[in-house]
Amino acid sequence: MNEQDMDRLVEAITARVKDRLQPRAPQAPAAPEAFNKADGRPAHDAACATCVMPLEACEGCGLNPINATAQWLPPSNTPSPAEMARYIDHTLLKAEASRGDIEKLCEEARRHRFWSVCVNATNVRLASSHLQGSEVNICAVVGFPLGAGTPGAKAFEAREAVRCGATEIDMVLNVGALRSGDYRLVTEDIRKVVAAVPGRIVKVILETGMLDLTQKTIACALSKVAGAAFVKTSTGFGPGGATVEDIALMRGIVGSELGVKASGGVRTYEDAVKMLKAGANRLGASSSVQIVTHAKAASTSGY
Amino acid sequence: MNEQDMDRLVEAITARVKDRLQPRAPQAPAAPEAFNKADGRPAHDAACATCVMPLEACEGCGLNPINATAQWLPPSNTPSPAEMARYIDHTLLKAEASRGDIEKLCEEARRHRFWSVCVNATNVRLASSHLQGSEVNICAVVGFPLGAGTPGAKAFEAREAVRCGATEIDMVLNVGALRSGDYRLVTEDIRKVVAAVPGRIVKVILETGMLDLTQKTIACALSKVAGAAFVKTSTGFGPGGATVEDIALMRGIVGSELGVKASGGVRTYEDAVKMLKAGANRLGASSSVQIVTHAKAASTSGY
Repeated sequence: MNEQDMDRLVEAITARVKDRLQPRAPQAPAAPEAFNKADGRPAHDAACATCVMPLEACEGCGLNPINATAQWLPPSNTPSPAEMARYIDHTLLKAEASRGDIEKLCEEARRHRFWSVCVNATNVRLASSHLQGSEVNICAVVGFPLGAGTPGAKAFEAREAVRCGATEIDMVLNVGALRSGDYRLVTEDIRKVVAAVPGRIVKVILETGMLDLTQKTIACALSKVAGAAFVKTSTGFGPGGATVEDIALMRGIVGSELGVKASGGVRTYEDAVKMLKAGANRLGASSSVQIVTHAKAASTSGY
Repeated sequence: MNEQDMDRLVEAITARVKDRLQPRAPQAPAAPEAFNKADGRPAHDAACATCVMPLEACEGCGLNPINATAQWLPPSNTPSPAEMARYIDHTLLKAEASRGDIEKLCEEARRHRFWSVCVNATNVRLASSHLQGSEVNICAVVGFPLGAGTPGAKAFEAREAVRCGATEIDMVLNVGALRSGDYRLVTEDIRKVVAAVPGRIVKVILETGMLDLTQKTIACALSKVAGAAFVKTSTGFGPGGATVEDIALMRGIVGSELGVKASGGVRTYEDAVKMLKAGANRLGASSSVQIVTHAKAASTSGY
């Protein structure tokens, strides 16, 4: 994809999303002409409905089957405690976390059946050995929390984390490049990490608290184009955290094929439910035990 | 060096430093028996005066001539504005820094003749092209700001930064490993980065605000053992910043062969002077222009 294509793509996506955010009368589905109406498959010479590029120029736009998540559906009811635990990446990313802290994190994850533990790369091997034989996954963060490394270094870091036992990678987007309009670098950065860890889930942390609406929109679009499996709100080290509005925006842009992870400030069962209802299908939290314990208490008292 | 040697080394250094911090009567120089009194060179079978290991087991203990800085001497008088500028790494490490911000940083560094600009790896190439032909150096941060990557990833990141034009590397020590007593990992981490960038200055950021006295002591000792050129106080993203007490402690431990960089909260000319007098020979600051401008104003009014 050349510079011009990239600019065109970004403009087109931004315009479409802005358009969708306007209140409006019901209308026909977007770009229906791109599809053969009989079977819903793309018609010849049509544009890709995901990335709006001509189909022959579309490079996969995040639909890489290896990296794809299950199709997202809005939750039909409030999750039970056990269901809630399976949405949670139980997180400890403090620089000063000791071996003992990581061991405790892993024990909690095993006991409560959290989806994963989310740790710094230096702790992946330890977490991996503690969680052997369990169903708990391991997320490693990459380029964390500033996102200001080079694409090559992020890719190396991701590969090394996977070698140490990580099953998912939470990378930070190059925020400075995004804010400077260097969309090529933003995309290359994500693409390299995705390519470095075939078969693994790659989540892109946008650090939404540093971005305006247009920047968030573009960040989601580029993450999808570059083959990410998830977009994620915050590192927890920057300004702000997950908001219902941001989650809804992100879900609106990436559609149902990608995941949306709410992280930063998700501290209670109520926060967690709100995020899931807004469109999240993964939650990053350090107070995860409190979340599911409260959930248990709430469900027995008819929450 | 095996585990036992490492523990012995850490204990010995800790004991010596604690001992030196006690008020005492004047005494003979430490470990004089290690030296041939006639010419001051190490005597046969003696311990290395730097790392206290038997000389035949000492692996260089930071005295790698490629990475050595000039011998430090306490400043004889308050630096002039021009002298002060040459102590300063002019720093911009915010994730959201744009191309324009980095260009401005470089222009300021060139105009005021700061020692270097200190930037994230993603901005090294841009800074390098802007500073071509100038005397301003380029520091890149590595494992920043958590220090919680793997040694391999940090080494790769450092090498890539140097390939992009960095002349100095400011790496963050593995704080979690230090606090867990995993001194082997702390040392390997630094050693790998030093080995990855031969001929370049490597500074080790201790993040002093997260460490107690013993941990700071050990961090300095291990940095020296591992071949670092400088120890440095803070990332500016963690708790606390440079203090006069920490700078004095660090200088006391690394002696005159290594550099000491004060960073985090150095905002005024007065701060800068205090740090230099306490033992620093490099300053990290983002308000560097203010520091040297104030210095100019102060020197004309007889500060």
